[in-house]
Amino acid sequence: MIIVGELINASRKAVSQAIEKGDAEYIKTVAIDEEKAGAHYIDVNAGIFVGKEADYLKWLTQTVQSVSEKPCALDSPDPLAIEAALSVHKGTPMINSISMEKARWEKLLPLVAGTDFKVVALCMSDAGMPTTCADRLSIADKLVEGLTAKNVPITNIYIDPLVQPLGTNHSFGAEFINTVSEIKNRYPGIHFMCGLSNISYGLPERKFLNRIFMAQAIYAGLDGAIMNPLDKPMMGTIAAAEALAGRDKNSFRYLKAYRAGLVVS
Amino acid sequence: MIIVGELINASRKAVSQAIEKGDAEYIKTVAIDEEKAGAHYIDVNAGIFVGKEADYLKWLTQTVQSVSEKPCALDSPDPLAIEAALSVHKGTPMINSISMEKARWEKLLPLVAGTDFKVVALCMSDAGMPTTCADRLSIADKLVEGLTAKNVPITNIYIDPLVQPLGTNHSFGAEFINTVSEIKNRYPGIHFMCGLSNISYGLPERKFLNRIFMAQAIYAGLDGAIMNPLDKPMMGTIAAAEALAGRDKNSFRYLKAYRAGLVVS
Repeated sequence: MIIVGELINASRKAVSQAIEKGDAEYIKTVAIDEEKAGAHYIDVNAGIFVGKEADYLKWLTQTVQSVSEKPCALDSPDPLAIEAALSVHKGTPMINSISMEKARWEKLLPLVAGTDFKVVALCMSDAGMPTTCADRLSIADKLVEGLTAKNVPITNIYIDPLVQPLGTNHSFGAEFINTVSEIKNRYPGIHFMCGLSNISYGLPERKFLNRIFMAQAIYAGLDGAIMNPLDKPMMGTIAAAEALAGRDKNSFRYLKAYRAGLVVS
Repeated sequence: MIIVGELINASRKAVSQAIEKGDAEYIKTVAIDEEKAGAHYIDVNAGIFVGKEADYLKWLTQTVQSVSEKPCALDSPDPLAIEAALSVHKGTPMINSISMEKARWEKLLPLVAGTDFKVVALCMSDAGMPTTCADRLSIADKLVEGLTAKNVPITNIYIDPLVQPLGTNHSFGAEFINTVSEIKNRYPGIHFMCGLSNISYGLPERKFLNRIFMAQAIYAGLDGAIMNPLDKPMMGTIAAAEALAGRDKNSFRYLKAYRAGLVVS
């Protein structure tokens, strides 16, 4: 499972305050915590700061990479912000994210074309959020076709089929998971990257629902998530789900998670 | 989800003692508890009592049905024991279970032929326990063919693909769940009935693993389990997993489980 740590996001108050104060220590601490907890990428997002996003994203990237050797997921729809961050980024970044919305597609495609960047590609178009598996597949086809035509190898594409709340429609969980399964079969070597927590919006015991949903999505082929890696029950769930789905020889990673105290009944 | 309460089984010491003492009150209490907790069938098993199994199974059936209107799952490979229990059973029982082992098949088939009984059919043959999805499907095909040829409708067949421990082979979880998915696609209307707890044998935090496995199997189409219905975290997991798999309109049963205190993060 490829885990992108989601915590360094300016939509979180502590992060926006740290950015405004130039409090590098706070950002570094979060980055170190995320890496220690198992994040493979550290997401950086300064999207709430209109006009200053590029400077702040660059600063976040530098600050994170001053203490972590993990690559960043550069989280912005704005190519100027991403370019600013790229100018200081070490290693191979993840670009989070492109979509089939025309303006976003046209602005970001030149930036990823021909690179070895990992590219998160949202199943979103100007027609709005997809609701069915068929809608998502149709957008995924265009994303894959468009990106591979610009020499982004399929193994660097991370599809986000976009979770919608179960509380809105009782089929939204299954439509998402079926999409994961279909895309995995259709494009061998492709990856996924998404946040799952939207599934439980409006329902009680959200964290419980999120974990069960993660377990099911992993069985269907989900291999990446943007999440809080400090969420121990979720990390334990991922280890168990991957082992049960046949992706953990000798239950090695499950036993490691157990010893780390992540697996608690 | 069709839930068969598994607690009235003579392999449990309290139950074997109650049987030997003729302690009907203990058996009745367990039956009432299982029904209240949501069991659709009450399993009765007196298998450890060689020579007395038929009498005891009959007594268990009468005792359970004196306080519960739920049908029983008559749990024996011995047609004499099942016939004794059938002589007093009210309603439509579940027969647990037939298999493709030659002796068991030949003895039990006449007993279920042409009836409206629910029939649990194990994916087991004289070649031993199947390990791959293909092995299981091959036995399932024979079970379905043989039972339907004797006028057992497909909707009364409950396949048990047989869980084997993940600790033995890291693919055993996926092989089981893939079988559920394949059988469901191959035989529309068919059901499943199995115990899942064997998956975690030899690994730590078994209950945690069992719940994650249940969630994944439900996504794949599992619609029945032999289990302890008093296991609240498992019952909450089932409610969440069914909702997320699209089988719970307006999350009605999930919310009911939440209000009953079954859903705890």
